[in-house]
Amino acid sequence: CVSQRGQLHPTPCWSVSHKQGTALHDNTAIMQVIPPHLSNCRDQGPFTAHTSLLRRRRRELRSRMELLIMETQAEVCRALAALDPGASFSVDSWERKEGGGGISCVLQDGEVFEKAGVNVSVVSGLLSEEAARQMRSRGKSLKAKDGKLPFCAMGVSSVIHPKNPHVPTMHFNYRYFEIEEADGTKQWWFGGGTDLTPTYLNEEDAVHFHKTLKEACDKHDLKLYPKYKKWCDDYFYIKHRGERRGIGGIFFDDMDSPSKEEVFQFVKSCAKAVVPCYIPIVKKHCHDSFTPEEKLWQQLRRGRYVEFNLLYDRGTKFGLLTPGSRIESILMSLPLTARWEYMHNPPESSKEAEILEVLRNPKDWVH
Amino acid sequence: CVSQRGQLHPTPCWSVSHKQGTALHDNTAIMQVIPPHLSNCRDQGPFTAHTSLLRRRRRELRSRMELLIMETQAEVCRALAALDPGASFSVDSWERKEGGGGISCVLQDGEVFEKAGVNVSVVSGLLSEEAARQMRSRGKSLKAKDGKLPFCAMGVSSVIHPKNPHVPTMHFNYRYFEIEEADGTKQWWFGGGTDLTPTYLNEEDAVHFHKTLKEACDKHDLKLYPKYKKWCDDYFYIKHRGERRGIGGIFFDDMDSPSKEEVFQFVKSCAKAVVPCYIPIVKKHCHDSFTPEEKLWQQLRRGRYVEFNLLYDRGTKFGLLTPGSRIESILMSLPLTARWEYMHNPPESSKEAEILEVLRNPKDWVH
Repeated sequence: CVSQRGQLHPTPCWSVSHKQGTALHDNTAIMQVIPPHLSNCRDQGPFTAHTSLLRRRRRELRSRMELLIMETQAEVCRALAALDPGASFSVDSWERKEGGGGISCVLQDGEVFEKAGVNVSVVSGLLSEEAARQMRSRGKSLKAKDGKLPFCAMGVSSVIHPKNPHVPTMHFNYRYFEIEEADGTKQWWFGGGTDLTPTYLNEEDAVHFHKTLKEACDKHDLKLYPKYKKWCDDYFYIKHRGERRGIGGIFFDDMDSPSKEEVFQFVKSCAKAVVPCYIPIVKKHCHDSFTPEEKLWQQLRRGRYVEFNLLYDRGTKFGLLTPGSRIESILMSLPLTARWEYMHNPPESSKEAEILEVLRNPKDWVH
Repeated sequence: CVSQRGQLHPTPCWSVSHKQGTALHDNTAIMQVIPPHLSNCRDQGPFTAHTSLLRRRRRELRSRMELLIMETQAEVCRALAALDPGASFSVDSWERKEGGGGISCVLQDGEVFEKAGVNVSVVSGLLSEEAARQMRSRGKSLKAKDGKLPFCAMGVSSVIHPKNPHVPTMHFNYRYFEIEEADGTKQWWFGGGTDLTPTYLNEEDAVHFHKTLKEACDKHDLKLYPKYKKWCDDYFYIKHRGERRGIGGIFFDDMDSPSKEEVFQFVKSCAKAVVPCYIPIVKKHCHDSFTPEEKLWQQLRRGRYVEFNLLYDRGTKFGLLTPGSRIESILMSLPLTARWEYMHNPPESSKEAEILEVLRNPKDWVH
């Protein structure tokens, strides 16, 4: 794949210059249409010009969502860079010949972070009816013209694996979809979530994390946090182990009410909560001392993370099955290192058994 | 799960005593019938009594296949133990309340082997029409009485991950299925294969491995090796990477001609070829010196092994989706440690690029 790499520290991601006309693959089945935002900025070069364009078009929700995902990427990268000053992000901006592109920012083997990736992508094109149905978790059927549906998808996604076993892994993803049916009707929906995967349980951290997310949700509707907290516990379930991947957070998909504007405002609150819900936990524990046994338990939990992502995660599966998708950006979510031991069973009443208990029986952290 | 553990070194696996009446899970949807061989030996205790019984019933092919899988397990375990004299196998014999069971022998963190597992299982019960169809790679539909099909499945499977990056990983699996249709017709077939996953290419080893398998095949039909060599290259394909998992070997499924006896004799030849095709390669390289960079490349290749097994392997998927299956025996195939680096691209003309080239474009090793 052809992409442009740079070093980012601590400049915001979207200020790297944008290489024109590069393509990830020669051809892709579903990417046929140049996304309006990227196509309009092609002649203007750098992303800064692109963001100016988006700002001028603020009245369009699509433009504001695109600005939000880029701002979130920059904000999270800056916060991570500030905590790991020796490390630097590698930045790849990539584009598809047929339409769409993205920027992947990855920090690898730093002092604080083992692997931290923050991706944005804005893609559009044509979907088959079957693929479109699979994209919506409710599996709603959509009427296509000549079997194809024009679509636009954009999102920011991130997985952060720290080195210290007392600092939890965090994942978040916020995304927006639009599909145009044969009669011109536009279907749209938002999805996303933020969730935490600790190696060891720290109740204070769990409460802080969930409370921050709850506050973001409560500003919009008191029903949202309990509903999306449960959805998160149900979604991140490693069925064959009978365990959740982590201690949850919030997760939602197919959100298309009460209105586009109101859902966008909710998604914005969630995205703005990423840094305050996670960064204080990193700061608090990144200099904690740890034993080789604690590091080993972290590696075994990383193995479970890989199991979830490769066996169950819809985003990963959908990405890998999409012709011409950027594999490195999808599998950026995997940890740098992982471990599988045959028949590893932590002793009763150990700290390892304590977190397993919570992964098997999710708790309510805020009331 | 309730299982019995012991230390095996170098006693054959099937001589461990067999714990009676233990069950992996309270209930399983598809395991309803006690397999005739295990049920008959329940009152006799140790597996040695069971093997005597199987020997008396040699005229039944099922008994001879069961003896073959147990002999193969013992033979491979003895060969591995002889190469890694400091290490010992942990042996778990497990049984399902509703019928069937198995023995898992796993050597972990030895001097020569990072993780080496050899499993046997003999299970029977009732399958849904849909599950039965999925078991056969050709997806043949089968007629059930009251929607359920009595079946019997037995097999030996093994994955051996050595420590030294100059010793390749090896996998083999030989299995036999029987399904009884509503009208009493018995469908039966064999499946299996042996394949090699080196970290670095050694042409001499590749030729030895494939030549030994070819000789085993050629005794039965000259068409078998070319057909099953290609099937192996096609099956162990990591689609999203455009790479095979390794340099292949043989793979086949749904083999039900020319006759049950002839297919069994072919499977027996393949099973007997496991030790001679692999063990000389381990002996030759297990004391080779290696650099930290070579170890790192091995860890990245282990990551690809995990990707294949969790995303594509039919056996792993079928196992994990089967209610009440023994997860630890299925995921025993995963390496002890693995690594994922973002955008790792070996330099042109390096030893790492050399193996990648062969994984992307499989070669014929014997003519």
